[in-house]
Amino acid sequence: MSAALTKESEVDVLIIGAGPAGLMCANALAMAGVNVRIIDQRTAKIAAGQADGIQPRTIEVFQSYGIGERLIREGNQMHMAAFYNPSPSGGIEASYGGTRRTDRAPDVSAPNARYPFEITLHQGAIEAIFLDSMKAHGVVVERPIIPTSLELSKSEEELKDPNARPVKVTLKYLEPPEGQSDSEVVHAKFVLGADGAHSWVRKALGITLDGEQTNYIWGVVDMVPDTDFPDIRCKCAIHSNNGSCMIIPREGDLIRLYIQLSDGDVVDPNTGRVDKSKMGPEKLLQVAKKSFHPFEINRSGEIDWWTLYIIGQRVAAQFSVHERVFIAGDACHTHSPKAGKSGQGMNASMNDTHNLAWKLTHVLRGWADISLLKTYEFERRKYAQDLIDFDKKFSRLFSGKPRTEENQDGVAHEEFLEAFQTFGLFTSGIGVHYEPSPITANQHQSCASNLIVGERVIPHVFVRAADARPYEIQDLLPSDTRFKVLVFAGNTADQEQAARVNALAENMGKPEGFLKRFGKGEHGKVFDILAISSAPKQVTNYTDLPRLFRPHWSKVLLDDTDMYARVGGGGYEAYGIDKQRGAVVVVRPDGYVGVVAPFERVDDVNAYFASFMADV
Amino acid sequence: MSAALTKESEVDVLIIGAGPAGLMCANALAMAGVNVRIIDQRTAKIAAGQADGIQPRTIEVFQSYGIGERLIREGNQMHMAAFYNPSPSGGIEASYGGTRRTDRAPDVSAPNARYPFEITLHQGAIEAIFLDSMKAHGVVVERPIIPTSLELSKSEEELKDPNARPVKVTLKYLEPPEGQSDSEVVHAKFVLGADGAHSWVRKALGITLDGEQTNYIWGVVDMVPDTDFPDIRCKCAIHSNNGSCMIIPREGDLIRLYIQLSDGDVVDPNTGRVDKSKMGPEKLLQVAKKSFHPFEINRSGEIDWWTLYIIGQRVAAQFSVHERVFIAGDACHTHSPKAGKSGQGMNASMNDTHNLAWKLTHVLRGWADISLLKTYEFERRKYAQDLIDFDKKFSRLFSGKPRTEENQDGVAHEEFLEAFQTFGLFTSGIGVHYEPSPITANQHQSCASNLIVGERVIPHVFVRAADARPYEIQDLLPSDTRFKVLVFAGNTADQEQAARVNALAENMGKPEGFLKRFGKGEHGKVFDILAISSAPKQVTNYTDLPRLFRPHWSKVLLDDTDMYARVGGGGYEAYGIDKQRGAVVVVRPDGYVGVVAPFERVDDVNAYFASFMADV
Repeated sequence: MSAALTKESEVDVLIIGAGPAGLMCANALAMAGVNVRIIDQRTAKIAAGQADGIQPRTIEVFQSYGIGERLIREGNQMHMAAFYNPSPSGGIEASYGGTRRTDRAPDVSAPNARYPFEITLHQGAIEAIFLDSMKAHGVVVERPIIPTSLELSKSEEELKDPNARPVKVTLKYLEPPEGQSDSEVVHAKFVLGADGAHSWVRKALGITLDGEQTNYIWGVVDMVPDTDFPDIRCKCAIHSNNGSCMIIPREGDLIRLYIQLSDGDVVDPNTGRVDKSKMGPEKLLQVAKKSFHPFEINRSGEIDWWTLYIIGQRVAAQFSVHERVFIAGDACHTHSPKAGKSGQGMNASMNDTHNLAWKLTHVLRGWADISLLKTYEFERRKYAQDLIDFDKKFSRLFSGKPRTEENQDGVAHEEFLEAFQTFGLFTSGIGVHYEPSPITANQHQSCASNLIVGERVIPHVFVRAADARPYEIQDLLPSDTRFKVLVFAGNTADQEQAARVNALAENMGKPEGFLKRFGKGEHGKVFDILAISSAPKQVTNYTDLPRLFRPHWSKVLLDDTDMYARVGGGGYEAYGIDKQRGAVVVVRPDGYVGVVAPFERVDDVNAYFASFMADV
Repeated sequence: MSAALTKESEVDVLIIGAGPAGLMCANALAMAGVNVRIIDQRTAKIAAGQADGIQPRTIEVFQSYGIGERLIREGNQMHMAAFYNPSPSGGIEASYGGTRRTDRAPDVSAPNARYPFEITLHQGAIEAIFLDSMKAHGVVVERPIIPTSLELSKSEEELKDPNARPVKVTLKYLEPPEGQSDSEVVHAKFVLGADGAHSWVRKALGITLDGEQTNYIWGVVDMVPDTDFPDIRCKCAIHSNNGSCMIIPREGDLIRLYIQLSDGDVVDPNTGRVDKSKMGPEKLLQVAKKSFHPFEINRSGEIDWWTLYIIGQRVAAQFSVHERVFIAGDACHTHSPKAGKSGQGMNASMNDTHNLAWKLTHVLRGWADISLLKTYEFERRKYAQDLIDFDKKFSRLFSGKPRTEENQDGVAHEEFLEAFQTFGLFTSGIGVHYEPSPITANQHQSCASNLIVGERVIPHVFVRAADARPYEIQDLLPSDTRFKVLVFAGNTADQEQAARVNALAENMGKPEGFLKRFGKGEHGKVFDILAISSAPKQVTNYTDLPRLFRPHWSKVLLDDTDMYARVGGGGYEAYGIDKQRGAVVVVRPDGYVGVVAPFERVDDVNAYFASFMADV
């Protein structure tokens, strides 16, 4: 009997798959001190290639976990996009739209992106950032290990008890230590399947993918170029009569080329499937050379990585089973890796689990009701579907033939450019908007008209009252599992308003107020308070605010410039908040606005928390 | 005979003393790959207290060695200064100067500081930054070791030969490894004495200190305060009728108090010397409490560190002997540690050796003539003297009694504030100006009228032509021992100017031009070229510049905004350079402008280098 040798163990969260989605989740849970394990079938992390573009919003998310600086330091920044179309003399030339030269455009068109660029970095380097951060919190990826069975309890009672372990997963060690069993049975409170497009977890749960493949076939080549092409360090869309091509500049001198292929190049006529043996990196480069004409492009050194793929857009029918087993990332949505912006899939994947991790933490700690977890599918599946709708449109435009004298049915440059810019908010990740739910309550939106409930907090610089040091407010809203209670205190230099602020503090400090009522006595782990006055720094002391709003001298901010008028000021206006009367803004642990309310409606903030938090 | 056991060794540079001056030098030389050793008499690095304020210019210097981010991350930032004076009702109140409220002022008044604040951090943390950086380059401090004898060769020939080792230093190991001799004789090409105010090296060389002590006696206390004083996180100058006091906020919740003492408090009437046993931290705090009245100040927890000192201002008569043994830092100048700005001494010390290190490297590599080393004393002794003149004035104002109704001879707040602001350029380190010498040639100053020869390069953001990524130009001028040749190419979109640029490249590329003539065949280690066009990014390709000016795609910059018009642009104007015709600017390896010239006078740049570089 090998059963006697099989190890049995318990864990709060088991993550299957250590790609970007799994690692984002594991790191977030590790930082929160949650009991978590993560396994992967690969022997080692990825070294080159694969998805690689980090969107502006994802950079903000990295920053919120304290790993943004490294990402920015190691990656390449894409600030500029360039567009080339067929020239009358044959070959290609930079495109002009109307009277203004528009061959070069901002890569990111979201006006309030904190980081107005995309970062390109190979997936192995991105994974390493997570691995190092997790390691500092005591969590490492266990590998190579695969799951072989997954059973979910059928007991309603167990499924609803956050302390139960209703998921039983059998693991198989592919390289078990000498003398040890190669299997283990894990009893988990929650399981996350982040195991990619061919997800074993998804299949084990019997979840279907909705959507279809397209006929667009593309090749990808990573290499260091030797070229006279002047926009080789821009994201560049080339539409030539010899096919389309996209350049994504990468770290160091590397670039990635996406090269459009015709069926004849790569499809086996007998099977109708892509036959990789019909195409190689040198052949891909030959195809690219034709698009680049009259510019020269050659490789300098070896090809770093290459692949072929067919664009496909599919979304899983559900993202969880009983809010006990979840799937995330490529396991629940596949996109074209490019679609005019590289790495949509990877960004969506990491943001899936950024959305999930704090919810798991709150439920596991007993702070929130288990129903909170329903909002994961609600928020992320809608986003995945929107993304795919966008993807379809964009793929059609990008893969289509360019409009020329001879081909009047082709895609006009203006049409392509407009799509590129219109979708900027979307592709940057900045425009993500979660619809109303228990955790996004927008009934008082008008009191902070630009801090949209369900959207991330707009970056803005405020100065600290005590020392006039400027701070980007996003840096004061870390992903530390706490709700941030931003008390926009209004004009505290005014006697009447100061009295209102004191009354608000008194109200919010009551035992029945959310600050004291929720969090099971661990208020400091669940809520973080910041007070932001609109009064000028010359006349405002941090000691002017009531004690509840300044547990520490660093907690009082001013909507004013720094001492040199270089940054800051205008925050109330940017956020659409009345400078005199202020407002209360609650930011979720993931950086999205949860609820806003005027002072006199702070009871609605109590009701907001009561809708999903657990009473003591 | 123990002589047989005494180890003999050779080294290029021996540094004695691992305080800030010694460590700055050791790190710079380690990064440059120079054969260097550094010894210190202490068993371990400093843990708390001592000097702690980093000036804006010094932050720039740290950044130039790639260690600025850590400094900024770990330190506290002082942005705001506040001033308190006697109030009519007794006690103190925030001071008003004229009609505008000026009780709070910028801490740094240098308008073009890249970092418009000072950083406070205890000396141990500052030293750790250097130690970790050095370690990554294979250099560690050897300790505890003291020098016991120093002999300098009397041979003129040896002294002039950069490859000779004319300095013989005997070292004594205070904790020699078991079974090993406790002494070592080191034969060094160069020796640096960075061994503090009581410098053994200075005494061994017989160098005298000029200057005198003052009668101002101050106490220093580091602690976490418990207070209702609203400006406790500002640099705060308090002039009360009960004595003066200065607050320097520190990392975390720590503050440092500088407390004025009267002779009776601390001077032994018999010896006339400070008797530390007459004063303790609790007594110091009692004195401070009187100055703070009517505000309360108490300690929260223990006193972290404390000391007493008498302000003294002295400068060594010479900074080197035969340019073979140098002294730096406190060994050659002592200041008041405060003087209205904390840590002047430490900043001057680190900038001494920042000035020296690249010169040693160039001489040791054979790139520069040994006479280059004369510029160390020339540049740094003048600065030390200026600093002391300032220090005297400021100490008098700060230690003097405040002017009140009763004391009309006292120091008026307006006078103090004016001095505080007038000296801002000086105290920030930004205003350092090296006078004309072989390495600062200002005959063509007018062609770049704001890039002052002998001053550091004004920070400004330019964008890279190839990818529109914005860069602070200071980050492209690292302290990597290379001279940076900035070719301000002017309006390269203009045919005529493009022709001038091509002609300049042809001229500069000639074998007799400095680029090819100097550097002993290692041009790439001695010169780094950047081209900066004033033409807009929409019409400029990096490929427009001649090959000599773009050895890599990243080397071409534009004086234009980034893609979002957030940063950049106006650089030619800020630097006082003609947008059409450009200029050539040479920046020394330490970030100071060495020479500027119009295109047609590039021969004067050749002459500049010929005056101190060694011919092949």
